[in-house]
Amino acid sequence: MAEFELIDLVRGRAAHPRDDVVLGIGDDAAVLQPPPGMQLVVAMDTLNDGVHFPAGTDAAHVGWKALAVNLSDLAAMGAEPAWCTLSLSLPDGDPAWVQGFLDGFLSLAALHRVALVGGDTTRGPLSVSVTVHGLVDPGRALRRDGARVGDAVWVSGTLGGAAAALRRWRAGEPMEAALRERLERPRPRVALGRALAGVASACIDVSDGLLADLGHLCAASGVAACVDVDALPGREALPAGFGTAVLRALQAAGGDDYELCFTADAGADDVVRAAASAARTGVEVTRIGTIAAGRGLQAVDRDGRPWQPDRTGHEHFAR
Amino acid sequence: MAEFELIDLVRGRAAHPRDDVVLGIGDDAAVLQPPPGMQLVVAMDTLNDGVHFPAGTDAAHVGWKALAVNLSDLAAMGAEPAWCTLSLSLPDGDPAWVQGFLDGFLSLAALHRVALVGGDTTRGPLSVSVTVHGLVDPGRALRRDGARVGDAVWVSGTLGGAAAALRRWRAGEPMEAALRERLERPRPRVALGRALAGVASACIDVSDGLLADLGHLCAASGVAACVDVDALPGREALPAGFGTAVLRALQAAGGDDYELCFTADAGADDVVRAAASAARTGVEVTRIGTIAAGRGLQAVDRDGRPWQPDRTGHEHFAR
Repeated sequence: MAEFELIDLVRGRAAHPRDDVVLGIGDDAAVLQPPPGMQLVVAMDTLNDGVHFPAGTDAAHVGWKALAVNLSDLAAMGAEPAWCTLSLSLPDGDPAWVQGFLDGFLSLAALHRVALVGGDTTRGPLSVSVTVHGLVDPGRALRRDGARVGDAVWVSGTLGGAAAALRRWRAGEPMEAALRERLERPRPRVALGRALAGVASACIDVSDGLLADLGHLCAASGVAACVDVDALPGREALPAGFGTAVLRALQAAGGDDYELCFTADAGADDVVRAAASAARTGVEVTRIGTIAAGRGLQAVDRDGRPWQPDRTGHEHFAR
Repeated sequence: MAEFELIDLVRGRAAHPRDDVVLGIGDDAAVLQPPPGMQLVVAMDTLNDGVHFPAGTDAAHVGWKALAVNLSDLAAMGAEPAWCTLSLSLPDGDPAWVQGFLDGFLSLAALHRVALVGGDTTRGPLSVSVTVHGLVDPGRALRRDGARVGDAVWVSGTLGGAAAALRRWRAGEPMEAALRERLERPRPRVALGRALAGVASACIDVSDGLLADLGHLCAASGVAACVDVDALPGREALPAGFGTAVLRALQAAGGDDYELCFTADAGADDVVRAAASAARTGVEVTRIGTIAAGRGLQAVDRDGRPWQPDRTGHEHFAR
C-alpha cells in the first residue's frame, strides 16, 4: 500500500467525535480549538519494534499500547485527553497490520474520547510515535516537583503484573491471562489522575518501575522517600511460585505497570481515598511510604530491613 | 549515554524563550498556555535514516531538516509556530551526534521562536519524529480545499534545487553549494504563509514535488489545474548541462523544495504580491497556472504542448 492509500485508510477510520476539531486528517496540519482559558498538556512517546515490544507482537496490542503509554503521561499530569497525532513507520504497507493496529489504537482512543487528528506514515523500521494533547485548568497540572517532606507516598492499582508476564515470556512459560492483559493492554489511569488534581502534591506514572519513577519524582522535588516494598499492592495476583525475593523485585522495580505514583499531605488520607473513589474507576489507591528530607530512596521490607533490588526481578522489555 | 543523560543534555540546551511555556522538558508532559481565542495548528512528521535522508548525513542537517519539514506544514496553514516536541530514536546514545543534531534543530527553532518543550529519546534505528504546534486566528488557517475555478496558481521561491542536488549526489558528482543548501537546509516559508492567510484561497507545501502536491490541493478542492512547466521559477539557478527535459522534470516533479504552492483570486495578483512583499522574506512569488473545472492536472510547456513527467527528473530521496 502506498502512503496516500494508508493515510486514506487511517482517515476513513478516525472518526472525530469532538466538535473542537476544526480540521482533522488530510491537510498539512490539523486545526483545533482549545477551550478558553485552559492550559494545554502535551506528551510524546515512541515505541520501537523489538525495543519496546517483542518483535511479532499482535498489531492491535501495539496500537493500544502506543496510545496507552501516552495517555498515561496525561494521567500523571491530571489532564483530560483531547487529541492525538500518530506517526507510523512501516517496513511495508501491509494493510492487515495497519487495520489491526487501528483496532487497538482507536478502541482505546474511543474510551477516552481522544480524536486522532493527524500525523504521517513513512517507510522504515516498524516504529510508532504518538503525540497526545490534553487540557487542564490553569495551575492544576500535577507535576513531579511538588512533593514535600512528610507527605505520604501512594500508588494506584497493582504493581508487578506486567513484569511478571514478561518474566513468563522470557522463560518460555505460559502467561496467566490477567498478567498478559497488564503487559499488552495497560489501562492509563486518566480518571484517577484528573481526580487527583488539586489533591496530590506530585505525581508520575510508573513506566520504568516504581522505585525508578519515584526516584525521578523525588529528584524533581528535592526530597527523599522511604517505601515499604511489602506494602506494594497486588502481590496476591502474582505467581506465588516466583518466591518472595522475585516478587518484591517485580513489584518494586518491574516496569510497564502504568499506574500512578503520587504524594499527598500525610493528613489527607481520607481526601485521597475520596478522590479516588469519586473517579469511579474501581482502581484502589494504597499508601506505600513517606517523603523525607534529603536525597535518594530507601526501600525497606515489612520488618524494616533495607531492601536492595537486584537484577532478579528487573523486568522491563525496553532494552 | 543513557536515556536520562540524553534528556538532560537536550533539556540543558533547549531554552524556552516564550512565557507561554508553563512547564517544559522534564516532567511527564509539557504544559502550555495558548493565547485566548486562537486556534491550535498541529503537524507531525518523521524522518527515517536511509529513507528520508542518506545514511551518514551530517547530524546538524538532520536536526535542521526534521524541524524544517514540520515548520513547512505550519507555513502551509498560515500559522505562527509556537512549540515543538521531539522524539529521537538512536541506535546508540552518541553524545557528539546528539549535540550536532541539536545544533541544527535549535538554530532553526531559534529563528522561528519555537520552544522545544518535550518528547522522548529511545533506543532504535535512527529516526526523528517532530510534532509542531502553531497558532492561527479562528477561521484564518490556509487549507487545501479552498481553491475555486478561475483562481490563479502560485508558487513561492524557486523549484528544482533540492532535486538537482540529489541528482548530483546520486551521480557521484560534486554538488553546487547553493543546491546543497536547498537539499540540506530547506527554509520553511513561515512568514510568507502567515502573510497569505486571508489572501490565498488554498495552500500546500511542496514536499513530494510541485505537480504531486498541487494534485493533492486540487483533489481536496474538487477542481483541476493547468500549469506551465516553463513558467516555474528558478531554472536559471539549475545546471544548464542537465538539458531541458531533465530541468523541467526536476522543477515540476522533484521533491524537497518546501516552497508554498497556493491559489488566489485571478484578479488579486497585486494583493498577492503585496502580501508576499510585506512578509519581508525576500522570497518572490510566481504565477504558474490556473484552476479549472473538472479533475486532474494538466501540465503544458511554453508552447502549450502537453508535458508528461517521466522518471528522468523525479528526484526525491524518500524511497
